Amino acid sequence: MTRMSISIKNLKDIVDMLGTVVTEAKFKIGISGVSVNAVDPAHVAMVSLEVPKTVFSEYDVPADEEISVDLEKIRSVIKLASSADTVIITKDKDKLKFEIGTIIKSISLIDNDQITNPRVPQIASDDYVVLTKADFEKGLRAAEDVSDAIRLTLDKNNFYAKSTSDADESEMILPKDMVKELVCNEPIKSSYPLEYLLKLVKSISSNEDIKISFKSDYPLTIEFNLGSGNENARIKGRFLLAPRMES
Amino acid sequence: MTRMSISIKNLKDIVDMLGTVVTEAKFKIGISGVSVNAVDPAHVAMVSLEVPKTVFSEYDVPADEEISVDLEKIRSVIKLASSADTVIITKDKDKLKFEIGTIIKSISLIDNDQITNPRVPQIASDDYVVLTKADFEKGLRAAEDVSDAIRLTLDKNNFYAKSTSDADESEMILPKDMVKELVCNEPIKSSYPLEYLLKLVKSISSNEDIKISFKSDYPLTIEFNLGSGNENARIKGRFLLAPRMES
Amino acid sequence: MTRMSISIKNLKDIVDMLGTVVTEAKFKIGISGVSVNAVDPAHVAMVSLEVPKTVFSEYDVPADEEISVDLEKIRSVIKLASSADTVIITKDKDKLKFEIGTIIKSISLIDNDQITNPRVPQIASDDYVVLTKADFEKGLRAAEDVSDAIRLTLDKNNFYAKSTSDADESEMILPKDMVKELVCNEPIKSSYPLEYLLKLVKSISSNEDIKISFKSDYPLTIEFNLGSGNENARIKGRFLLAPRMES
Repeated sequence: MTRMSISIKNLKDIVDMLGTVVTEAKFKIGISGVSVNAVDPAHVAMVSLEVPKTVFSEYDVPADEEISVDLEKIRSVIKLASSADTVIITKDKDKLKFEIGTIIKSISLIDNDQITNPRVPQIASDDYVVLTKADFEKGLRAAEDVSDAIRLTLDKNNFYAKSTSDADESEMILPKDMVKELVCNEPIKSSYPLEYLLKLVKSISSNEDIKISFKSDYPLTIEFNLGSGNENARIKGRFLLAPRMES
Repeated sequence: MTRMSISIKNLKDIVDMLGTVVTEAKFKIGISGVSVNAVDPAHVAMVSLEVPKTVFSEYDVPADEEISVDLEKIRSVIKLASSADTVIITKDKDKLKFEIGTIIKSISLIDNDQITNPRVPQIASDDYVVLTKADFEKGLRAAEDVSDAIRLTLDKNNFYAKSTSDADESEMILPKDMVKELVCNEPIKSSYPLEYLLKLVKSISSNEDIKISFKSDYPLTIEFNLGSGNENARIKGRFLLAPRMES
Repeated sequence: MTRMSISIKNLKDIVDMLGTVVTEAKFKIGISGVSVNAVDPAHVAMVSLEVPKTVFSEYDVPADEEISVDLEKIRSVIKLASSADTVIITKDKDKLKFEIGTIIKSISLIDNDQITNPRVPQIASDDYVVLTKADFEKGLRAAEDVSDAIRLTLDKNNFYAKSTSDADESEMILPKDMVKELVCNEPIKSSYPLEYLLKLVKSISSNEDIKISFKSDYPLTIEFNLGSGNENARIKGRFLLAPRMES
């Protein structure tokens, strides 16, 4: 019988991140860890998470299986605990059982067939910038009441995030020496829907480095880590976002 | 003329607790202290408070009298002060006067005949459990999004609080060694409306021991203390709750 | 080209104070500083602010000019920064550009003709009281759920603030020794709308001394300081409020 222990902090990070695109998710429980892909109903954004077994304090998975749940029900478990608590999760027929101290909570599962397996597109770019989540968030928040799209530009010296409306304009300029890493073979620029990016950065709970790669008028990829463990016990995340065509 | 001084902290505890069942209350002001009984409009729950004169820093009551007030008006006084403040309360004809530092606020009283005197039922059980408010609250909160009722079970080894819906289930199990006291002659179980219990525990401001006694399909009694004084200057509270018949 | 640097704390104090009466304001940018007068749509209250050039860390104003802006747009800039940050403001044609660290935000200006220049009435009284904002606020808050007007009374011994409804009453009494200064040639009393006064005190961000002067049934003047600088680098504010005639 599948049985896993995980910190509430890590469980919350997973649920918050998936919640940026979906309300229900299908987890693939495997021998070496848990993975999940979720695409938003408009097919604009995708979140992929890899949770290696090292993230769990106990991980007893006799065979591969899929578990589909309503994220809101996991949230109702999380709010009963503090982030330092550990929860023991066991699958018992069509129920998922959560134990936190003296409390046991069982939630019903969703039929796995009800949740489609999103196709993961092959996206790759050699041009990228690595910066802290907080720096990226500043640029996004400045754009928030200007427009619903943000144009990202990368050249070999700077990373720009700019929004424009008829009346107002916001721009963040990060020169190469203010980011962790910047690789750019030729200048690229592309616009993306702002709302998805704002939700994403809010769901990265600590001020981590994130890696943003894109091409002109091409999907954006953001790679990030979640959770509180050491380097071998981190949750690896990947966020894909379709470009917005500028009119 | 009736004149009493009480800390804002104690006054707030009294008003918050009564507010779980009523919006207006009739206080019996006596030689040795103040008492109040309040029953909710659906006649499902009753709160009884005894405030001994030792709770007051000044207590000058020449004769027994009844004072009926709108609790919201007392709240409007409380919010002007900090919990460490003391308020002087004097009755002046059909007004109740509150003095806090440089501020005087007078509120009109309600006609005593407008508020009925609830009959206090004779409820008693030899089976009970004493536990902290915080432990009980955990079990209640786990049940919150499962059902609107919670079933309490007591046997000689454990105290259980369980809620069930078609889809989900929550249970708290407190073994005898995790509670302060547990007395049970024979196993008992009974269901109660969850909402009243949640309001009650939220209105007990500190993490005190509470005593829960009941019988199978019989009203529940919770005894608790309020206020910040020493053992001789505590507000004694009693909460009665009708059982919910399970379908 | 007009270019000014100011702390976010000072900018926020200015915008919050003007926001008590208007949503758009016209700033007069002069050689020695910035001034602004704003009157609320009902012509009941007026705010006048004088911001001497010493409040700015950089103040480069080649010629007098007027700049009219939507206050909400300045708020959207302020919320991107922390109060310790400094913002560089430059006027660039019909745009106002704000730079905070790596962020540049440009907002459109409003046509100066769209905002009328309010006439500043000649109000003066020899009778006044100087007290802390916090003490005055206590009296206003006590009146908040009693009435929408407050009657201020000044005699040579006391300052009173009183509100009365059919049912309830609130009064603050500040004897001369509990205020900083009290000058009264003959007893005066006048009523004022409470809501404006509450908004005003909420917009004075620190617990400063304020000077209240009035006459019987005559406009009220409140003089106050804003901002975080030393005595030579304070924003000077003046608030005028029409009396409310008692029925």
